[in-house]
Amino acid sequence: MNAVILFSGGLDSTTTLAIAIHLGYECYVMSLNYGQRHSVEVDAAKRIVDTLPVREHKIMDLDLSQIGGSALTDTTIAVPESPTQGIPVTYVPARNTIFLSLALGWAETLNAKDIFIGVNAVDYSGYPDCRPEYIHAYEELACLATKTGIEGTPFKIHTPLINLSKADIIRKGVELDVDYSLTVSCYQADGNGYACGKCESCRFRKEGFLAADIPDPTRYFQSETFD
Amino acid sequence: MNAVILFSGGLDSTTTLAIAIHLGYECYVMSLNYGQRHSVEVDAAKRIVDTLPVREHKIMDLDLSQIGGSALTDTTIAVPESPTQGIPVTYVPARNTIFLSLALGWAETLNAKDIFIGVNAVDYSGYPDCRPEYIHAYEELACLATKTGIEGTPFKIHTPLINLSKADIIRKGVELDVDYSLTVSCYQADGNGYACGKCESCRFRKEGFLAADIPDPTRYFQSETFD
Repeated sequence: MNAVILFSGGLDSTTTLAIAIHLGYECYVMSLNYGQRHSVEVDAAKRIVDTLPVREHKIMDLDLSQIGGSALTDTTIAVPESPTQGIPVTYVPARNTIFLSLALGWAETLNAKDIFIGVNAVDYSGYPDCRPEYIHAYEELACLATKTGIEGTPFKIHTPLINLSKADIIRKGVELDVDYSLTVSCYQADGNGYACGKCESCRFRKEGFLAADIPDPTRYFQSETFD
Repeated sequence: MNAVILFSGGLDSTTTLAIAIHLGYECYVMSLNYGQRHSVEVDAAKRIVDTLPVREHKIMDLDLSQIGGSALTDTTIAVPESPTQGIPVTYVPARNTIFLSLALGWAETLNAKDIFIGVNAVDYSGYPDCRPEYIHAYEELACLATKTGIEGTPFKIHTPLINLSKADIIRKGVELDVDYSLTVSCYQADGNGYACGKCESCRFRKEGFLAADIPDPTRYFQSETFD
Protein backbone atom coordinates (compact mmCIF):
# COMPACT_ATOMS: atom_id res chain seq x y z
CA MET A 1 0.00 0.00 0.00
CA ASN A 2 1.32 3.42 -0.94
CA ALA A 3 1.83 6.11 1.69
CA VAL A 4 3.17 9.64 1.57
CA ILE A 5 5.57 10.56 4.36
CA LEU A 6 6.39 14.18 5.18
CA PHE A 7 10.07 14.12 5.94
CA SER A 8 12.31 16.95 7.09
CA GLY A 9 15.45 15.00 7.90
CA GLY A 10 14.98 15.66 11.61
CA LEU A 11 14.69 13.24 14.50
CA ASP A 12 10.90 13.02 14.58
CA SER A 13 10.23 12.62 10.88
CA THR A 14 13.06 10.11 10.48
CA THR A 15 11.50 7.99 13.22
CA THR A 16 8.13 8.38 11.53
CA LEU A 17 9.56 7.22 8.21
CA ALA A 18 11.17 4.21 9.90
CA ILE A 19 7.80 3.31 11.42
CA ALA A 20 6.01 3.59 8.04
CA ILE A 21 8.62 1.35 6.43
CA HIS A 22 8.34 -1.11 9.34
CA LEU A 23 4.55 -1.21 8.86
CA GLY A 24 5.12 -2.33 5.28
CA TYR A 25 4.01 0.76 3.35
CA GLU A 26 5.47 1.62 -0.02
CA CYS A 27 6.93 4.94 1.05
CA TYR A 28 6.76 8.06 -1.10
CA VAL A 29 8.76 10.62 0.79
CA MET A 30 8.24 14.37 0.48
CA SER A 31 10.68 17.01 1.71
CA LEU A 32 10.23 20.74 1.48
CA ASN A 33 12.90 23.22 0.65
CA TYR A 34 10.86 26.09 2.04
CA GLY A 35 13.40 28.81 2.56
CA GLN A 36 14.08 27.58 6.08
CA ARG A 37 17.06 28.97 7.92
CA HIS A 38 18.33 25.42 8.51
CA SER A 39 18.12 24.29 4.89
CA VAL A 40 20.93 21.87 5.64
CA GLU A 41 18.14 19.59 6.90
CA VAL A 42 17.22 18.93 3.26
CA ASP A 43 20.75 17.63 2.63
CA ALA A 44 20.34 15.44 5.70
CA ALA A 45 17.01 14.23 4.35
CA LYS A 46 18.68 13.14 1.11
CA ARG A 47 21.44 11.28 2.93
CA ILE A 48 18.97 9.47 5.19
CA VAL A 49 16.67 8.47 2.33
CA ASP A 50 19.67 7.01 0.50
CA THR A 51 20.02 4.47 3.33
CA LEU A 52 16.37 3.39 3.36
CA PRO A 53 14.01 1.35 1.16
CA VAL A 54 11.74 4.12 -0.12
CA ARG A 55 10.00 4.28 -3.49
CA GLU A 56 10.60 7.93 -4.26
CA HIS A 57 11.93 11.05 -2.61
CA LYS A 58 10.35 14.24 -3.88
CA ILE A 59 11.87 17.53 -2.83
CA MET A 60 9.60 20.48 -3.49
CA ASP A 61 10.70 24.09 -3.57
CA LEU A 62 8.36 26.58 -1.94
CA ASP A 63 9.86 29.80 -0.70
CA LEU A 64 7.97 30.58 2.50
CA SER A 65 10.41 33.38 3.22
CA GLN A 66 8.15 35.30 0.80
CA ILE A 67 5.56 35.06 3.56
CA GLY A 68 7.88 35.24 6.55
CA GLY A 69 6.46 35.73 10.03
CA SER A 70 8.79 33.21 11.69
CA ALA A 71 12.34 33.02 12.94
CA LEU A 72 12.75 29.99 10.67
CA THR A 73 11.82 31.82 7.47
CA ASP A 74 12.83 35.40 8.29
CA THR A 75 16.50 35.74 9.19
CA THR A 76 15.88 39.12 10.79
CA ILE A 77 14.02 37.33 13.61
CA ALA A 78 16.48 35.61 15.97
CA VAL A 79 16.03 31.99 17.05
CA PRO A 80 15.50 32.04 20.85
CA GLU A 81 18.21 30.27 22.84
CA SER A 82 16.25 30.02 26.07
CA PRO A 83 12.65 29.02 26.83
CA THR A 84 9.98 31.56 25.90
CA GLN A 85 6.35 32.05 26.93
CA GLY A 86 3.53 30.87 24.63
CA ILE A 87 3.94 29.82 21.03
CA PRO A 88 7.53 30.72 20.11
CA VAL A 89 8.67 32.81 17.15
CA THR A 90 9.92 29.63 15.49
CA TYR A 91 6.28 28.85 14.68
CA VAL A 92 5.91 29.07 10.88
CA PRO A 93 2.43 30.33 9.94
CA ALA A 94 0.32 27.48 8.58
CA ARG A 95 3.36 25.33 7.86
CA ASN A 96 1.91 21.91 8.60
CA THR A 97 -1.29 22.85 6.76
CA ILE A 98 0.72 23.80 3.70
CA PHE A 99 2.86 20.66 3.89
CA LEU A 100 -0.09 18.33 4.51
CA SER A 101 -1.88 19.89 1.52
CA LEU A 102 1.05 19.11 -0.76
CA ALA A 103 1.21 15.59 0.67
CA LEU A 104 -2.53 15.25 0.08
CA GLY A 105 -2.17 16.29 -3.55
CA TRP A 106 0.60 13.77 -4.11
CA ALA A 107 -1.31 11.07 -2.22
CA GLU A 108 -4.29 11.54 -4.48
CA THR A 109 -2.11 11.22 -7.57
CA LEU A 110 -0.53 8.04 -6.18
CA ASN A 111 -3.88 6.61 -5.12
CA ALA A 112 -2.55 6.56 -1.56
CA LYS A 113 -4.92 7.03 1.35
CA ASP A 114 -2.25 7.17 4.02
CA ILE A 115 -0.16 10.19 4.97
CA PHE A 116 2.43 10.16 7.76
CA ILE A 117 3.58 13.23 9.66
CA GLY A 118 5.89 13.27 12.67
CA VAL A 119 4.01 15.77 14.81
CA ASN A 120 4.29 15.44 18.55
CA ALA A 121 2.13 16.99 21.26
CA VAL A 122 4.22 16.03 24.31
CA ASP A 123 7.79 17.33 24.15
CA TYR A 124 7.01 20.09 21.69
CA SER A 125 6.85 23.84 21.38
CA GLY A 126 3.11 24.34 21.59
CA TYR A 127 2.69 24.77 17.84
CA PRO A 128 -1.06 24.67 17.14
CA ASP A 129 -0.65 22.44 14.09
CA CYS A 130 0.84 19.57 16.11
CA ARG A 131 -2.25 18.80 18.19
CA PRO A 132 -4.63 15.84 17.78
CA GLU A 133 -7.67 18.10 17.24
CA TYR A 134 -5.88 19.78 14.36
CA ILE A 135 -5.01 16.44 12.76
CA HIS A 136 -8.61 15.24 13.06
CA ALA A 137 -9.88 18.43 11.44
CA TYR A 138 -7.38 17.92 8.63
CA GLU A 139 -8.63 14.38 8.01
CA GLU A 140 -12.19 15.68 7.68
CA LEU A 141 -11.07 18.42 5.35
CA ALA A 142 -9.08 15.96 3.19
CA CYS A 143 -12.20 13.91 2.54
CA LEU A 144 -14.20 16.94 1.45
CA ALA A 145 -11.32 18.46 -0.54
CA THR A 146 -10.48 15.70 -2.95
CA LYS A 147 -11.88 13.63 -5.75
CA THR A 148 -10.95 10.36 -4.07
CA GLY A 149 -12.20 11.68 -0.73
CA ILE A 150 -15.72 12.36 -1.96
CA GLU A 151 -15.72 9.03 -3.77
CA GLY A 152 -15.88 7.45 -0.35
CA THR A 153 -12.44 6.36 0.79
CA PRO A 154 -11.27 8.46 3.71
CA PHE A 155 -7.72 9.65 4.08
CA LYS A 156 -5.82 8.71 7.22
CA ILE A 157 -3.23 11.10 8.65
CA HIS A 158 -0.90 8.87 10.68
CA THR A 159 0.81 10.56 13.61
CA PRO A 160 2.63 7.70 15.32
CA LEU A 161 4.61 10.05 17.58
CA ILE A 162 1.84 12.36 18.67
CA ASN A 163 1.52 11.01 22.21
CA LEU A 164 5.13 9.93 22.77
CA SER A 165 7.74 11.71 24.83
CA LYS A 166 10.96 12.60 23.04
CA ALA A 167 12.69 9.79 24.96
CA ASP A 168 10.06 7.29 23.79
CA ILE A 169 10.47 8.48 20.20
CA ILE A 170 14.22 7.93 20.41
CA ARG A 171 13.79 4.48 21.98
CA LYS A 172 11.36 3.54 19.22
CA GLY A 173 13.77 4.76 16.54
CA VAL A 174 16.74 2.91 18.03
CA GLU A 175 14.61 -0.25 18.08
CA LEU A 176 14.06 0.30 14.33
CA ASP A 177 17.78 0.91 13.68
CA VAL A 178 17.44 4.62 12.96
CA ASP A 179 20.85 6.27 12.68
CA TYR A 180 20.21 9.55 14.49
CA SER A 181 23.69 10.79 13.73
CA LEU A 182 22.41 11.53 10.20
CA THR A 183 19.46 13.63 11.37
CA VAL A 184 19.43 17.41 11.83
CA SER A 185 16.98 18.98 14.29
CA CYS A 186 18.70 22.28 15.09
CA TYR A 187 16.89 25.43 13.94
CA GLN A 188 20.19 27.11 13.24
CA ALA A 189 22.39 24.21 12.19
CA ASP A 190 25.47 25.30 10.30
CA GLY A 191 26.26 24.36 6.71
CA ASN A 192 27.76 21.06 7.83
CA GLY A 193 24.76 20.08 9.95
CA TYR A 194 26.40 20.87 13.28
CA ALA A 195 23.83 21.86 15.93
CA CYS A 196 23.79 24.87 18.26
CA GLY A 197 22.70 22.88 21.31
CA LYS A 198 20.74 25.90 22.55
CA CYS A 199 17.58 26.38 20.51
CA GLU A 200 14.34 24.79 21.60
CA SER A 201 14.62 22.00 19.08
CA CYS A 202 18.12 21.16 20.31
CA ARG A 203 16.97 21.29 23.92
CA PHE A 204 14.10 18.83 23.41
CA ARG A 205 16.42 16.53 21.49
CA LYS A 206 19.17 16.62 24.09
CA GLU A 207 16.73 16.04 26.92
CA GLY A 208 15.28 13.12 25.00
CA PHE A 209 18.61 11.33 24.64
CA LEU A 210 19.36 11.99 28.31
CA ALA A 211 15.97 10.69 29.46
CA ALA A 212 16.22 7.64 27.20
CA ASP A 213 19.73 7.00 28.51
CA ILE A 214 21.01 6.65 24.96
CA PRO A 215 24.24 8.33 23.87
CA ASP A 216 23.49 11.53 21.96
CA PRO A 217 25.17 11.28 18.53
CA THR A 218 24.41 14.91 17.66
CA ARG A 219 27.37 16.95 16.46
CA TYR A 220 27.40 20.30 18.26
CA PHE A 221 29.37 23.29 17.12
CA GLN A 222 29.39 24.88 20.55
CA SER A 223 30.85 23.39 23.68
CA GLU A 224 28.50 25.01 26.16
CA THR A 225 26.88 22.54 28.45
CA PHE A 226 23.15 22.12 28.34
CA ASP A 227 21.35 24.17 30.99
CA MET B 1 -8.93 45.78 7.48
CA ASN B 2 -6.43 43.57 5.72
CA ALA B 3 -7.59 40.67 3.55
CA VAL B 4 -5.78 38.11 1.42
CA ILE B 5 -7.30 37.47 -1.98
CA LEU B 6 -6.42 34.38 -4.02
CA PHE B 7 -6.22 35.64 -7.55
CA SER B 8 -5.59 33.70 -10.74
CA GLY B 9 -6.28 36.41 -13.30
CA GLY B 10 -9.44 34.60 -14.42
CA LEU B 11 -13.01 35.86 -14.57
CA ASP B 12 -14.11 34.56 -11.16
CA SER B 13 -11.14 35.67 -9.09
CA THR B 14 -11.05 39.08 -10.76
CA THR B 15 -14.69 39.60 -9.80
CA THR B 16 -13.88 38.41 -6.29
CA LEU B 17 -11.03 40.89 -6.02
CA ALA B 18 -13.29 43.71 -7.25
CA ILE B 19 -15.83 42.76 -4.57
CA ALA B 20 -13.17 42.74 -1.82
CA ILE B 21 -11.97 46.18 -2.92
CA HIS B 22 -15.56 47.43 -3.07
CA LEU B 23 -16.11 46.18 0.50
CA GLY B 24 -13.24 48.37 1.63
CA TYR B 25 -10.61 45.75 2.46
CA GLU B 26 -6.90 46.50 2.18
CA CYS B 27 -6.21 43.83 -0.42
CA TYR B 28 -3.12 41.63 -0.33
CA VAL B 29 -3.32 39.63 -3.52
CA MET B 30 -1.72 36.22 -3.99
CA SER B 31 -1.19 34.50 -7.33
CA LEU B 32 0.36 31.11 -7.88
CA ASN B 33 2.73 30.20 -10.62
CA TYR B 34 2.08 26.50 -10.12
CA GLY B 35 3.30 24.94 -13.32
CA GLN B 36 -0.13 25.35 -14.88
CA ARG B 37 -0.49 24.77 -18.59
CA HIS B 38 -2.05 28.22 -18.94
CA SER B 39 0.66 30.13 -17.09
CA VAL B 40 -0.24 33.13 -19.20
CA GLU B 41 -2.93 33.69 -16.57
CA VAL B 42 -0.20 34.93 -14.23
CA ASP B 43 0.72 37.62 -16.77
CA ALA B 44 -2.95 38.53 -16.95
CA ALA B 45 -3.03 38.68 -13.14
CA LYS B 46 -0.17 41.17 -13.13
CA ARG B 47 -1.82 43.38 -15.73
CA ILE B 48 -5.14 43.38 -13.88
CA VAL B 49 -3.56 44.16 -10.51
CA ASP B 50 -1.77 47.11 -12.10
CA THR B 51 -5.17 48.70 -12.75
CA LEU B 52 -6.53 48.23 -9.22
CA PRO B 53 -5.94 49.72 -5.76
CA VAL B 54 -4.29 46.75 -4.03
CA ARG B 55 -1.69 46.88 -1.27
CA GLU B 56 0.58 44.11 -2.54
CA HIS B 57 0.66 41.43 -5.20
CA LYS B 58 2.63 38.37 -4.22
CA ILE B 59 3.33 35.75 -6.87
CA MET B 60 4.50 32.46 -5.41
CA ASP B 61 6.26 29.72 -7.37
CA LEU B 62 5.19 26.19 -6.57
CA ASP B 63 5.71 23.60 -9.26
CA LEU B 64 2.71 21.30 -8.98
CA SER B 65 3.76 19.56 -12.18
CA GLN B 66 6.09 17.68 -9.79
CA ILE B 67 2.90 16.12 -8.44
CA GLY B 68 0.89 16.04 -11.68
CA GLY B 69 -2.36 14.10 -11.84
CA SER B 70 -4.23 16.78 -13.80
CA ALA B 71 -4.55 17.98 -17.39
CA LEU B 72 -3.59 21.42 -16.07
CA THR B 73 -0.27 20.33 -14.56
CA ASP B 74 0.64 17.35 -16.76
CA THR B 75 0.90 18.23 -20.44
CA THR B 76 0.61 14.56 -21.42
CA ILE B 77 -3.06 14.66 -20.31
CA ALA B 78 -5.20 16.49 -22.88
CA VAL B 79 -7.67 19.20 -21.88
CA PRO B 80 -11.16 17.90 -22.82
CA GLU B 81 -12.95 19.95 -25.48
CA SER B 82 -16.40 18.54 -24.86
CA PRO B 83 -18.35 17.81 -21.65
CA THR B 84 -17.19 14.78 -19.65
CA GLN B 85 -18.82 12.68 -16.94
CA GLY B 86 -17.97 13.24 -13.28
CA ILE B 87 -15.05 15.30 -12.02
CA PRO B 88 -13.00 16.19 -15.11
CA VAL B 89 -9.27 15.58 -15.62
CA THR B 90 -8.72 19.31 -15.22
CA TYR B 91 -9.20 18.82 -11.48
CA VAL B 92 -5.84 19.52 -9.81
CA PRO B 93 -5.36 17.32 -6.72
CA ALA B 94 -5.80 19.39 -3.55
CA ARG B 95 -5.24 22.66 -5.40
CA ASN B 96 -7.58 24.90 -3.44
CA THR B 97 -6.38 23.33 -0.18
CA ILE B 98 -2.79 24.13 -1.09
CA PHE B 99 -3.65 27.67 -2.20
CA LEU B 100 -5.83 28.40 0.84
CA SER B 101 -3.03 27.16 3.10
CA LEU B 102 -0.58 29.59 1.56
CA ALA B 103 -3.17 32.36 1.85
CA LEU B 104 -3.70 31.37 5.48
CA GLY B 105 0.01 31.61 6.23
CA TRP B 106 0.22 35.03 4.67
CA ALA B 107 -2.98 36.16 6.40
CA GLU B 108 -1.53 35.20 9.75
CA THR B 109 1.64 37.18 9.04
CA LEU B 110 -0.45 40.22 8.02
CA ASN B 111 -2.78 39.88 10.99
CA ALA B 112 -5.62 39.47 8.50
CA LYS B 113 -8.61 37.32 9.41
CA ASP B 114 -10.27 37.51 6.00
CA ILE B 115 -9.42 35.41 2.96
CA PHE B 116 -11.27 35.67 -0.35
CA ILE B 117 -11.47 32.89 -2.93
CA GLY B 118 -13.56 32.91 -6.10
CA VAL B 119 -14.96 29.40 -5.91
CA ASN B 120 -18.34 28.77 -7.43
CA ALA B 121 -20.67 25.83 -6.95
CA VAL B 122 -23.24 26.65 -9.65
CA ASP B 123 -21.70 26.92 -13.14
CA TYR B 124 -18.64 24.87 -12.30
CA SER B 125 -16.96 21.59 -13.07
CA GLY B 126 -17.89 19.64 -9.95
CA TYR B 127 -14.50 20.14 -8.32
CA PRO B 128 -14.84 18.98 -4.70
CA ASP B 129 -12.89 21.93 -3.34
CA CYS B 130 -15.42 24.48 -4.62
CA ARG B 131 -18.33 23.38 -2.43
CA PRO B 132 -19.70 25.19 0.65
CA GLU B 133 -19.10 22.16 2.92
CA TYR B 134 -15.44 22.16 1.94
CA ILE B 135 -15.11 25.89 2.68
CA HIS B 136 -16.75 25.48 6.10
CA ALA B 137 -14.39 22.61 6.95
CA TYR B 138 -11.47 24.79 5.91
CA GLU B 139 -12.59 27.61 8.22
CA GLU B 140 -12.70 25.18 11.13
CA LEU B 141 -9.27 23.84 10.26
CA ALA B 142 -7.83 27.36 9.96
CA CYS B 143 -8.82 28.15 13.53
CA LEU B 144 -7.16 25.00 14.87
CA ALA B 145 -4.09 25.31 12.63
CA THR B 146 -2.81 28.73 13.53
CA LYS B 147 -1.47 30.79 16.36
CA THR B 148 -4.00 33.56 15.83
CA GLY B 149 -6.77 30.99 15.34
CA ILE B 150 -6.27 29.40 18.75
CA GLU B 151 -5.96 32.83 20.31
CA GLY B 152 -9.63 33.22 19.66
CA THR B 153 -10.26 35.17 16.47
CA PRO B 154 -11.73 32.96 13.78
CA PHE B 155 -10.72 33.19 10.13
CA LYS B 156 -13.39 33.88 7.57
CA ILE B 157 -13.09 32.41 4.09
CA HIS B 158 -15.16 34.69 1.90
CA THR B 159 -16.69 33.08 -1.17
CA PRO B 160 -18.85 35.84 -2.63
CA LEU B 161 -19.48 33.92 -5.87
CA ILE B 162 -20.24 30.50 -4.43
CA ASN B 163 -23.98 30.61 -5.10
CA LEU B 164 -24.01 32.79 -8.20
CA SER B 165 -24.50 31.66 -11.78
CA LYS B 166 -21.76 32.64 -14.23
CA ALA B 167 -24.12 35.24 -15.69
CA ASP B 168 -24.71 36.74 -12.24
CA ILE B 169 -20.95 36.84 -11.61
CA ILE B 170 -20.44 38.73 -14.86
CA ARG B 171 -23.28 41.15 -14.10
CA LYS B 172 -21.78 41.80 -10.67
CA GLY B 173 -18.35 42.41 -12.18
CA VAL B 174 -19.66 44.77 -14.83
CA GLU B 175 -21.45 46.70 -12.08
CA LEU B 176 -18.05 47.04 -10.36
CA ASP B 177 -16.31 48.12 -13.60
CA VAL B 178 -14.30 44.92 -14.07
CA ASP B 179 -12.57 44.86 -17.44
CA TYR B 180 -13.08 41.25 -18.43
CA SER B 181 -11.05 41.71 -21.59
CA LEU B 182 -7.96 41.54 -19.38
CA THR B 183 -8.90 38.22 -17.75
CA VAL B 184 -7.85 34.76 -18.95
CA SER B 185 -10.03 31.76 -18.10
CA CYS B 186 -9.04 29.29 -20.83
CA TYR B 187 -7.24 26.13 -19.68
CA GLN B 188 -5.15 26.14 -22.82
CA ALA B 189 -4.79 29.83 -23.58
CA ASP B 190 -1.94 30.61 -25.93
CA GLY B 191 1.08 32.72 -25.04
CA ASN B 192 -0.81 35.90 -25.89
CA GLY B 193 -3.80 35.00 -23.73
CA TYR B 194 -6.06 34.02 -26.64
CA ALA B 195 -8.66 31.44 -25.60
CA CYS B 196 -9.57 28.13 -27.25
CA GLY B 197 -13.32 28.62 -26.86
CA LYS B 198 -13.75 24.87 -26.41
CA CYS B 199 -12.53 23.78 -22.98
CA GLU B 200 -14.93 23.62 -20.07
CA SER B 201 -13.69 26.88 -18.61
CA CYS B 202 -14.26 28.65 -21.95
CA ARG B 203 -17.69 27.08 -22.29
CA PHE B 204 -18.89 28.26 -18.88
CA ARG B 205 -17.51 31.72 -19.59
CA LYS B 206 -19.10 31.98 -23.04
CA GLU B 207 -22.45 30.77 -21.75
CA GLY B 208 -22.23 33.31 -18.93
CA PHE B 209 -21.79 36.27 -21.25
CA LEU B 210 -24.61 35.00 -23.46
CA ALA B 211 -26.97 34.50 -20.50
CA ALA B 212 -26.07 37.91 -19.06
CA ASP B 213 -26.63 39.47 -22.47
CA ILE B 214 -23.30 41.24 -22.19
CA PRO B 215 -20.87 41.32 -25.14
CA ASP B 216 -18.11 38.73 -24.65
CA PRO B 217 -14.74 40.55 -24.80
CA THR B 218 -12.75 37.29 -24.81
CA ARG B 219 -10.15 36.98 -27.57
CA TYR B 220 -10.46 33.56 -29.18
CA PHE B 221 -7.79 32.02 -31.35
CA GLN B 222 -10.22 29.68 -33.09
CA SER B 223 -13.21 30.72 -35.13
CA GLU B 224 -15.41 27.69 -34.41
CA THR B 225 -18.79 28.63 -33.09
CA PHE B 226 -19.76 27.57 -29.62
CA ASP B 227 -21.74 24.32 -29.58
